[in-house]
Amino acid sequence: MTVSGRGPRERMVFSAAQLIRRDGVGSTGMRSVAVHAQAPRGSLQHYFPGGKEQLVDEAVGWAGRYAAGRVARFMAALPEPTPGGLFDRMVRQWTEEYERQGFGGGCPVAAATVDRAASVESTRGAASAAFAEWTGAVARALADMGVPADRCEPLATLMIGSLEGAILIARAERSVRALTTVSRELGPVLDAAAGESVRPRPKGAADE
Amino acid sequence: MTVSGRGPRERMVFSAAQLIRRDGVGSTGMRSVAVHAQAPRGSLQHYFPGGKEQLVDEAVGWAGRYAAGRVARFMAALPEPTPGGLFDRMVRQWTEEYERQGFGGGCPVAAATVDRAASVESTRGAASAAFAEWTGAVARALADMGVPADRCEPLATLMIGSLEGAILIARAERSVRALTTVSRELGPVLDAAAGESVRPRPKGAADE
Repeated sequence: MTVSGRGPRERMVFSAAQLIRRDGVGSTGMRSVAVHAQAPRGSLQHYFPGGKEQLVDEAVGWAGRYAAGRVARFMAALPEPTPGGLFDRMVRQWTEEYERQGFGGGCPVAAATVDRAASVESTRGAASAAFAEWTGAVARALADMGVPADRCEPLATLMIGSLEGAILIARAERSVRALTTVSRELGPVLDAAAGESVRPRPKGAADE
Repeated sequence: MTVSGRGPRERMVFSAAQLIRRDGVGSTGMRSVAVHAQAPRGSLQHYFPGGKEQLVDEAVGWAGRYAAGRVARFMAALPEPTPGGLFDRMVRQWTEEYERQGFGGGCPVAAATVDRAASVESTRGAASAAFAEWTGAVARALADMGVPADRCEPLATLMIGSLEGAILIARAERSVRALTTVSRELGPVLDAAAGESVRPRPKGAADE
């Protein structure tokens, strides 16, 4: 994704998310966001009267909507959707980024949580809402694939939790090992919850 | 844990880990570390000539050794050790902290990764080493419990990854829900790898 083709406000929110996921909240300055977004510096005050806190919260909200939206796109692209196939796609979005662009960025919601959960209540709330939106989208997809209702939210939490943790380990190690590991280990567990344990995952689901 | 009963150097490393896991690396100042450690401010220069970078790296190293050391203690305390029982103890260290002290702190290795993996090579390396030390301790424990050799490291990575991600979600939500969820979901999966799938986990393992 690039910053082009959007309005200045949208570009600044997007740029803030990109810088936060690379350097954390503390090292992301308002000025560098404006530069990254190719926006006049004065426009920050105009669009974000609440300052950095407002911009960070909106970046976190954008990230939650983006992650939730990707779930529907992954589902649409899977010829025969399975829970393990969905998780494989969620993980592969990260392995592909890391293999193409290096390990420079993690999840902006994780960064906001680490840096602000203890000190900025609005940002903690934004992170909680982002996780909830993403978890809800994954849980609904699991339900559509035949996972029993009472298992959808727990399994969605397991998927997002293990993905978030594997992103951290991958960035530290500069290796996709942890990401491919959680996908390979959890795939059969997730498929079993939808009654797919006996039947091997269709080959098309992994090739998309 | 408290800062008392250690030398000033050790106290400062410990205090740095505590402040980093609460506020992230960016918001943790050298001066506040000295105050937290009840150490004279000049002693920072004396013990850490490499400045904040050295202190952060040593705090991350301390956290890795601490997490690895806890694995042996959890194993020793389990009357009948099982992989699911070990994971339950690893997770419960966090649920107990959050229920007693609130959601103020996460994992310092996660914080260092989010804030410095892209910008400070020595800190990224320290985080990688910390994850490796912790993963190695968990993998050895799994081997001792009968998990086949080629499954020990992948399952240890899954345990640590899902725990790290659940810590993030728990802090954002101010709820232990994600932590109890990953423990409940993965416990049977881990026990199955050690051939424990049929036999229920001994009651003592959960109550200890």
